[in-house]
Amino acid sequence: MTKEKGARSRRFEGGLAPDAVEVNSSVHFDYRLLPYDVAGSIAHSGMLAKQGIIPSEDAGTIKEGLLAVEKELSSGKLDWDPKLEDVHMNVEAHLSQRIGDAGRRLHTGRSRNDQVATDMRLYARDHALQLSELIDQLRLALVDLAAEHVDDFLPGYTHLQRAQPIRLGHHLLAYNEMLRRDKGRLLDARKRAGECPLGSGALAATTFPLDREMVAAELGFDGVTHNSLDAVGDRDFVVELIAAIALCQVHLSRLGEELVLWLSQEFQFATLGQSYCSGSSIMPQKVNPDLAELIRGKAGRVIGDWVTVMTVLKGLPMAYNKDLQESQEPLFDAVETLNGGLRVAIGMIQNLEFNTENTRNAVDKGYLVATEVADYLVSKGLPFRQGHDAAGALVAFAIKRGVELGQLSLEDFQSENALFEKDIFEWLDVARVVDRRDIVGGPAKNRILDEIERARTELSYLASL
Amino acid sequence: MTKEKGARSRRFEGGLAPDAVEVNSSVHFDYRLLPYDVAGSIAHSGMLAKQGIIPSEDAGTIKEGLLAVEKELSSGKLDWDPKLEDVHMNVEAHLSQRIGDAGRRLHTGRSRNDQVATDMRLYARDHALQLSELIDQLRLALVDLAAEHVDDFLPGYTHLQRAQPIRLGHHLLAYNEMLRRDKGRLLDARKRAGECPLGSGALAATTFPLDREMVAAELGFDGVTHNSLDAVGDRDFVVELIAAIALCQVHLSRLGEELVLWLSQEFQFATLGQSYCSGSSIMPQKVNPDLAELIRGKAGRVIGDWVTVMTVLKGLPMAYNKDLQESQEPLFDAVETLNGGLRVAIGMIQNLEFNTENTRNAVDKGYLVATEVADYLVSKGLPFRQGHDAAGALVAFAIKRGVELGQLSLEDFQSENALFEKDIFEWLDVARVVDRRDIVGGPAKNRILDEIERARTELSYLASL
Amino acid sequence: MTKEKGARSRRFEGGLAPDAVEVNSSVHFDYRLLPYDVAGSIAHSGMLAKQGIIPSEDAGTIKEGLLAVEKELSSGKLDWDPKLEDVHMNVEAHLSQRIGDAGRRLHTGRSRNDQVATDMRLYARDHALQLSELIDQLRLALVDLAAEHVDDFLPGYTHLQRAQPIRLGHHLLAYNEMLRRDKGRLLDARKRAGECPLGSGALAATTFPLDREMVAAELGFDGVTHNSLDAVGDRDFVVELIAAIALCQVHLSRLGEELVLWLSQEFQFATLGQSYCSGSSIMPQKVNPDLAELIRGKAGRVIGDWVTVMTVLKGLPMAYNKDLQESQEPLFDAVETLNGGLRVAIGMIQNLEFNTENTRNAVDKGYLVATEVADYLVSKGLPFRQGHDAAGALVAFAIKRGVELGQLSLEDFQSENALFEKDIFEWLDVARVVDRRDIVGGPAKNRILDEIERARTELSYLASL
Amino acid sequence: MTKEKGARSRRFEGGLAPDAVEVNSSVHFDYRLLPYDVAGSIAHSGMLAKQGIIPSEDAGTIKEGLLAVEKELSSGKLDWDPKLEDVHMNVEAHLSQRIGDAGRRLHTGRSRNDQVATDMRLYARDHALQLSELIDQLRLALVDLAAEHVDDFLPGYTHLQRAQPIRLGHHLLAYNEMLRRDKGRLLDARKRAGECPLGSGALAATTFPLDREMVAAELGFDGVTHNSLDAVGDRDFVVELIAAIALCQVHLSRLGEELVLWLSQEFQFATLGQSYCSGSSIMPQKVNPDLAELIRGKAGRVIGDWVTVMTVLKGLPMAYNKDLQESQEPLFDAVETLNGGLRVAIGMIQNLEFNTENTRNAVDKGYLVATEVADYLVSKGLPFRQGHDAAGALVAFAIKRGVELGQLSLEDFQSENALFEKDIFEWLDVARVVDRRDIVGGPAKNRILDEIERARTELSYLASL
Repeated sequence: MTKEKGARSRRFEGGLAPDAVEVNSSVHFDYRLLPYDVAGSIAHSGMLAKQGIIPSEDAGTIKEGLLAVEKELSSGKLDWDPKLEDVHMNVEAHLSQRIGDAGRRLHTGRSRNDQVATDMRLYARDHALQLSELIDQLRLALVDLAAEHVDDFLPGYTHLQRAQPIRLGHHLLAYNEMLRRDKGRLLDARKRAGECPLGSGALAATTFPLDREMVAAELGFDGVTHNSLDAVGDRDFVVELIAAIALCQVHLSRLGEELVLWLSQEFQFATLGQSYCSGSSIMPQKVNPDLAELIRGKAGRVIGDWVTVMTVLKGLPMAYNKDLQESQEPLFDAVETLNGGLRVAIGMIQNLEFNTENTRNAVDKGYLVATEVADYLVSKGLPFRQGHDAAGALVAFAIKRGVELGQLSLEDFQSENALFEKDIFEWLDVARVVDRRDIVGGPAKNRILDEIERARTELSYLASL
Repeated sequence: MTKEKGARSRRFEGGLAPDAVEVNSSVHFDYRLLPYDVAGSIAHSGMLAKQGIIPSEDAGTIKEGLLAVEKELSSGKLDWDPKLEDVHMNVEAHLSQRIGDAGRRLHTGRSRNDQVATDMRLYARDHALQLSELIDQLRLALVDLAAEHVDDFLPGYTHLQRAQPIRLGHHLLAYNEMLRRDKGRLLDARKRAGECPLGSGALAATTFPLDREMVAAELGFDGVTHNSLDAVGDRDFVVELIAAIALCQVHLSRLGEELVLWLSQEFQFATLGQSYCSGSSIMPQKVNPDLAELIRGKAGRVIGDWVTVMTVLKGLPMAYNKDLQESQEPLFDAVETLNGGLRVAIGMIQNLEFNTENTRNAVDKGYLVATEVADYLVSKGLPFRQGHDAAGALVAFAIKRGVELGQLSLEDFQSENALFEKDIFEWLDVARVVDRRDIVGGPAKNRILDEIERARTELSYLASL
Repeated sequence: MTKEKGARSRRFEGGLAPDAVEVNSSVHFDYRLLPYDVAGSIAHSGMLAKQGIIPSEDAGTIKEGLLAVEKELSSGKLDWDPKLEDVHMNVEAHLSQRIGDAGRRLHTGRSRNDQVATDMRLYARDHALQLSELIDQLRLALVDLAAEHVDDFLPGYTHLQRAQPIRLGHHLLAYNEMLRRDKGRLLDARKRAGECPLGSGALAATTFPLDREMVAAELGFDGVTHNSLDAVGDRDFVVELIAAIALCQVHLSRLGEELVLWLSQEFQFATLGQSYCSGSSIMPQKVNPDLAELIRGKAGRVIGDWVTVMTVLKGLPMAYNKDLQESQEPLFDAVETLNGGLRVAIGMIQNLEFNTENTRNAVDKGYLVATEVADYLVSKGLPFRQGHDAAGALVAFAIKRGVELGQLSLEDFQSENALFEKDIFEWLDVARVVDRRDIVGGPAKNRILDEIERARTELSYLASL
Repeated sequence: MTKEKGARSRRFEGGLAPDAVEVNSSVHFDYRLLPYDVAGSIAHSGMLAKQGIIPSEDAGTIKEGLLAVEKELSSGKLDWDPKLEDVHMNVEAHLSQRIGDAGRRLHTGRSRNDQVATDMRLYARDHALQLSELIDQLRLALVDLAAEHVDDFLPGYTHLQRAQPIRLGHHLLAYNEMLRRDKGRLLDARKRAGECPLGSGALAATTFPLDREMVAAELGFDGVTHNSLDAVGDRDFVVELIAAIALCQVHLSRLGEELVLWLSQEFQFATLGQSYCSGSSIMPQKVNPDLAELIRGKAGRVIGDWVTVMTVLKGLPMAYNKDLQESQEPLFDAVETLNGGLRVAIGMIQNLEFNTENTRNAVDKGYLVATEVADYLVSKGLPFRQGHDAAGALVAFAIKRGVELGQLSLEDFQSENALFEKDIFEWLDVARVVDRRDIVGGPAKNRILDEIERARTELSYLASL
């Protein structure tokens, strides 16, 4: 245990009470910031030396020392001390013990307030990028699966009632759209976290002539923050990133729900590789879609993370308040949850096998072509609302007879409306029904192929990673 | 009451149960979509006529009819019928009653599913723009107030403890930064809601040869959606807009908290015009900052709105599910809450008067220049961490004496560290302290003037509105 | 419009700004408190007279006046004035206009702070009771339906995978348990809201010699609050009631999900009366379970309500703060949502028809008796974990063969384990399987009958209402 | 690493994918259930033996084995294996390795579904009790502090504006009321978690003749659950306990806010022992109330925990779904957060020192006795609403003069209303003002003493612990 004093200086007479240490310390979770903290300190000390604020030889000593401390803390050679509160004071204390006064100069022109804001932004920006790449990998898996199933049909549903026939590939591509938006949100969040707060000090910047732009550029930021009070009290980037993550996880929850449905004995639309299923401790037959359920349930978790941070921020006066420490764990949790969720979703999509016979058969039951009957009448000149009503009556009639619409006779059709002709039966053929829906975003075969092409172009960069 | 059948066709034998009507109907809140519904229907029917899907003369009849129905529904001449469920069927029924078969053709190639998705996007895009302009008006009010107080000092706080002296203008500009980000988020949300879903039908597009791009352009969208299932089941734009609104309201809650503090008898940093204060039913002396409290409290409301929509969406299978109806009220509530909150915040900022004598006096109590003592020692070559410790000891010493740091003698300083010289007293002068913090985002006078200039340039467009 | 001054006294020079009136006024939602406000004022003024604080003849005049004002406000004869802020000042102003000075004496020894706390508690207590009775009516509907289906089988599910056979009545009774707990929570919340805050004044009680117990008793409270600061700043009862409501709505969301599943073409376990279904504006065949989806989705709404109130309360100092006004709408919304949800759920349960042939057939597919095979081996002395493993192997074997377990030969069984004998086939009979589960809470017929009996006893009071 | 198969039996061909293991495994958090899992298994196996379901000698072997495994897992001698998923399978596997077939018999008549439901209830019940005792300890600290400050005055606030004078002891006792309710909610939640689910099996109870009541009694439950589907799918007790915890943490957040205010340089109402304060890494003078801020901020965390569980539960069909695993971490987090929060709050209350001179002086500024002026006029026969208005005018008059009400002359009073007499000055004396508020829950001295007495009686049991 280090003898460095940390933040308590001689203004204080003793240490924190033990229960206070426990509640106050953040090092058991903010250790995740270690690489960003070290990178930030290297950039800061390099700049201090360049500006003549610390001896120029100190910069090298500090850098070397920091890299050594990082390595030893990561590998467990050095211990984390909760009495030193956080990753920042732990690193600084170990550094000072190792290199002496040079280490004690590192904090010149800096406060933990701007330091942690910098570390967290670096973490957020880094993980926004990692997650958006994982999203693209899931999109690729979905697009590949869609491409395999362009020629397979299944019912499209609304209200979980069979609605209209579509192609399976079309269904899978719906997730590609959601995930593209998710990626956009992550990158927008990353962009808006692109201003480096270092130089904002505790709240009022610093008297030292720092070169803020130099540090920002070295750390990969796009620029610097423009108000020191805001910079140290701002956790918008945490909120925005968690919001983007939460919505993506909600999309995974919808996929999870569909997997659970498709894998049920009632649907039997697909089977999932056992490497993504679990058994029962008591029922020997069970092959349960635990992972699909977990990506569904974990939406609750990241929604909770957002609520936590927002509630923490509500009503805080300027500038930094300790409450902000509570914004870290939700961020880490959200990032790690989505990371796991995406990886598992990729695995499930890659290990999913559709039973296309079942999906095709399902299209034939449930009057899915009733809209076609209405449209047919419209094509003969009837106003849509009347066509809709006539088709409804024909469905009611068919149900009473216990048959599907295609099994009615021409006379049956004509007794409802004289506009029906023989071509109504051909008109109701499923493949024709689907391919008549030939409009951007529609389920016609060529439209699906267009979308697959479009997605593959967007995702082609993954091949070269 | 109209006799049009609405969505129930002859497939149904009777109406909804009365309690079901009450829970199912949305017209008591979705009436807000009326102008967007009418605009969408005019664009849709114009396109249908151009494409030859409906008789070309119908387009004009429909447009005229829709505008008349809109006018009469808005003015209360026509009634809303909850049995017709929603704004869409109410408008269509009134239209058909007024213009007959042309009205019954309006719904050709369209479903309520893509219709409501379009209406809601139009509403969201419109209000994102309105709110971002209100945000800019609040920024302008803040910047104007900051400009008045560039030369006034107040304590900068962390942990609600006096920390370092700053200029009042600097403090106010912190909100300008938050609000600029808020505007960015609103506009990003608007951008991502820029694809028109019309043409996606119930879930599987439509068999009619619609010109989707034409409709999209007429309604001010940037393009069209690319997957029909996603398009009707997507409420991402609701979530994203509410998230942006909620964060902005959280910023207002911070401002609200600060106003409440500043107006308290303990702070007495400001007074607020009575037109933004309320009285007590029992305590005659009370002039309470109710509006400041309300913009603080209302953060909870919009956080709740986001939670509602996210929870609704969690685990929904493709494509449209009725649960989505529950995404409307939270959107309306969030938009209207922030609208009211921003307008009231503008009013309060314009009616706020600072007691700059009090803010200036507050700077002198609380050892706010202790950091300067440490920095002084650093400027004499001491490592920062040792300077920090020495300054802490001097503070402890001064407290025991019952004086501020500037009231210590040079001997007192030197007994702690021999590096102190006579110039320490000048070094601790507040104006100098603040203006030494001469760095982008810092509280030095010229830096504040830079930021005011920058903001005014960004906001100059408001003058010409 | 009244000329009474409301809360602004001559301490104020003018009115609120128009945008402030809009945000500040609560009368557009707190009008719901009218009957409770009037009841509270009648009790208060009666006590004032009895204590000699106001002239004894005033009590009668006030009572009569209040009842008249209530009637006229309810019927729309009198208008609500948003400038008077809330229900309380509207009632008092109308009263004073009607009866003069007696009306101006009503507020003696009272503040709006203790008045609104009282009104809201009365509202909460009243509706907790109403909702708990509706819950019991839903329980009764479920129990009646369970009684009809004691002899019908369906698969019990875990992970939406068929797990073990149960009786349909058993499944329905699961909701009886949830709802019983819900009722318990509502009544506990009601009980804890049982202390009357009147007499707490604005925050520091009052100098008048009120008889608080008298008022409390007259209003049906169990006692009085014991700290005036807490009493006016406390909204625990709102939080607790919303929490209980939200959990009940989550239970309805589970029922809603099951209804949606059962009504799907894949399950076809039940049909629902059309009076609880909606049609599609475009697909004529659709009979959608909109109400089931709505009771599912509305869980999000009441969860949001709770979040709103909790976030509002977080970090508020003593005693009353205007933020508390934001606790009203979530309470009203939660109460009204659950009220509608319960009534619709009752209607759906009463209009639900099970297809018991389908539920019975479903039991035979999916190796639901695999656990019985393991248990059989245990009954022959094998440790359970080995029995579990052997049964798993038999399931894998049967799947390869494309048969169910009951279709294997005795030799097949014995080749896995020699302990199997001929009686294994009888052992796997579904009715026997279920009735062997003869333990409290189990699906054996007599156990279900016990639970039905138990529930009917609890609910028998409903018959006499 | 054990070779026991866990739940995967020979139905499965291989293991989980590595990313699936990571997401699926719960042992890194459910290890907290170890003591409860072992207690449950001991009770279960004892009963199995008593009922003759397993050999009677096995019960002893199992018990001994379980206690040994618990000890070795707790002390780190044995490792947790994430491939075995959870605490249950880890314990069972280690047990079977240690004691052989007896261990493999433990799971007879039980499933992980009823096992984890039991473990979690035991955890919940145990911690509800622990937390309620901590709450009482905080109450005791508050009551002791209140007793020290019965004779000290401070302003009572509404809207953070000085409102009416009260006694400091009265203010502190407000928290006693909140915390008493919190305790009630915790104990109600505990009571409702009082039915033992063991015997519910996977979802359909079990075929073995278990003695459920025996197990329940041994584990300290009040009874057994009454529907097996509900029992394994129910997490109401988690929701209810977290809700109670969250509200208690919100109360701590209010206390935290008040501490932050009182410790500010503007209020200077109190000082806090340095063992509950933190320093700044850069500002040497800072003594920050970090712990007060943390108990304020952590309200967000437990609110988020509740949201998580509720969102997870929404829309789940019967009976057990894997999503339920996500209910564990929020429960643990909420329990541990409140535990830390209460302990720190106790410490802060015990280390808080009021500056009673400052609180007393604060009472004299801000027209806190204006209500008394109105009440005075009422005592002379004027209707309250007119008295209120007259007092408001006097305040306005005094403000213009720059004096407090007590500094006006009798003529000043009389020029507003002739009813004023000389005794008005005595009437406005602070101690008399406060002690005239002599009503249950009021700030009069004897009323506070009553409440202290009442609380001490309730808390007297703590002395004997």
